[in-house]
Amino acid sequence: MTYCLGILSNSGLVMAADSRTNAGVDYISTHQKLFDFSNPGERVILICTAGNLSITQGALTLLRRDLVAKEENNLHTLPTMYEVARYVGTKARVIQEQDRPWLEKDGIDFKCTFLVGGQICGEEPALFLVYSQGNCIQASKETPFLQIGEAKYGKPILDRILDFNTPLEAAAKCALLSIDSTMKSNISVGPPINVVMYETDTFKVRYELKLSLGAPYLAQIRKKWEISLNEAFDRMPNIDWEHYQDLPDDSVSLHG
Amino acid sequence: MTYCLGILSNSGLVMAADSRTNAGVDYISTHQKLFDFSNPGERVILICTAGNLSITQGALTLLRRDLVAKEENNLHTLPTMYEVARYVGTKARVIQEQDRPWLEKDGIDFKCTFLVGGQICGEEPALFLVYSQGNCIQASKETPFLQIGEAKYGKPILDRILDFNTPLEAAAKCALLSIDSTMKSNISVGPPINVVMYETDTFKVRYELKLSLGAPYLAQIRKKWEISLNEAFDRMPNIDWEHYQDLPDDSVSLHG
Repeated sequence: MTYCLGILSNSGLVMAADSRTNAGVDYISTHQKLFDFSNPGERVILICTAGNLSITQGALTLLRRDLVAKEENNLHTLPTMYEVARYVGTKARVIQEQDRPWLEKDGIDFKCTFLVGGQICGEEPALFLVYSQGNCIQASKETPFLQIGEAKYGKPILDRILDFNTPLEAAAKCALLSIDSTMKSNISVGPPINVVMYETDTFKVRYELKLSLGAPYLAQIRKKWEISLNEAFDRMPNIDWEHYQDLPDDSVSLHG
Repeated sequence: MTYCLGILSNSGLVMAADSRTNAGVDYISTHQKLFDFSNPGERVILICTAGNLSITQGALTLLRRDLVAKEENNLHTLPTMYEVARYVGTKARVIQEQDRPWLEKDGIDFKCTFLVGGQICGEEPALFLVYSQGNCIQASKETPFLQIGEAKYGKPILDRILDFNTPLEAAAKCALLSIDSTMKSNISVGPPINVVMYETDTFKVRYELKLSLGAPYLAQIRKKWEISLNEAFDRMPNIDWEHYQDLPDDSVSLHG
């Protein structure tokens, strides 16, 4: 599996991804899933990938090929983030058209999803989720984060902590803890973790981090979070059973 | 959806469930999913259900029918919790045999799962997860909790807080917070929440709780947990980007 997330904030954008892939539990390996296609000074384009690795790698290859060949439409020429997201979706469709019938025949999941975030000069920062079908949705002030892959374990912390006005540094920390929570609960999500923090109107990726297994900072943040959570838990009041204790047998409300 | 969990501890057992069912997002209703089939003084039997409601209700009806008819094998006569769990699986198989072909034809999910927990005089407390296929697994000291239904959102807190030696009161609190986390992230899980805490060798359910939407205690625990989590989050150190800032463009490690 994979877990990637993007967070749009009023001061910028955070993108983060784990790096574990697996073909069954007996073939686990490491592949980067967060890519920087920026043209510094003019645009920042960050892409995260999840799903069938052969499909997502194929789509990335097509994206790079258009850049090298200086095709009219490429990641550095398209005028808006929306068009960039649609264009990524188009590449996913091209590869799926080639491979889907063969994968489908053997019951292999051909699905893929992308997060496409960044800022193009003249626009506000934007964040899109591109579905396997090539269509896309956009993050908004109401829902400032988007997730792909194994998204459920890491969602509670985002739901409790984040909104559009969360400071960028806090959003980055939250992204890291969301990935760490997922790694703790699902072995198919794993390090290295890549995190990028982008400040609006800088048009350059200035903050990026790669945390490998055993990175002291990763160990430290995991340990501290575990301790903090346990302390917070201990401070919570125990359940007030008072009015529910020693019910006469015939009044047990859960009687089967 | 549904979310139920059971926690086995060295001093007893906790079982908890939400009460929301839905047939699509436009038909949401409330059904109890935690049932007490105890025979106080001799055995405590608690059953949680998830999955297709017609299948789980059908299976429960068969369980009740055997009790009323005083069949040789029923929830009050079987000598071990393992046999009780297998017996519940048998009832799930009976109903599925009747209905599965009809449901399958129309692409309706016929799957169901059960948690079966309790203690029979002469045995230690035990907790089982009965699969849709009728087979079962048992909670152990190493993995003291089992979940059915929408299990992922509520797993991180269990992974961080619980082990077999967690005091029973804390395990109950943890179960409640696990359900609350799930409700916060998934609208298809909802109140009332039922929680039962059973102390080893009492052979009677003394602690049970039903928290409806708007119950002051539920609102209080949710609010406190949200505040505690946010405080814990604020105390976490920000990401140390120090050695990663202002990388020259050509050294960006994430280059797409």
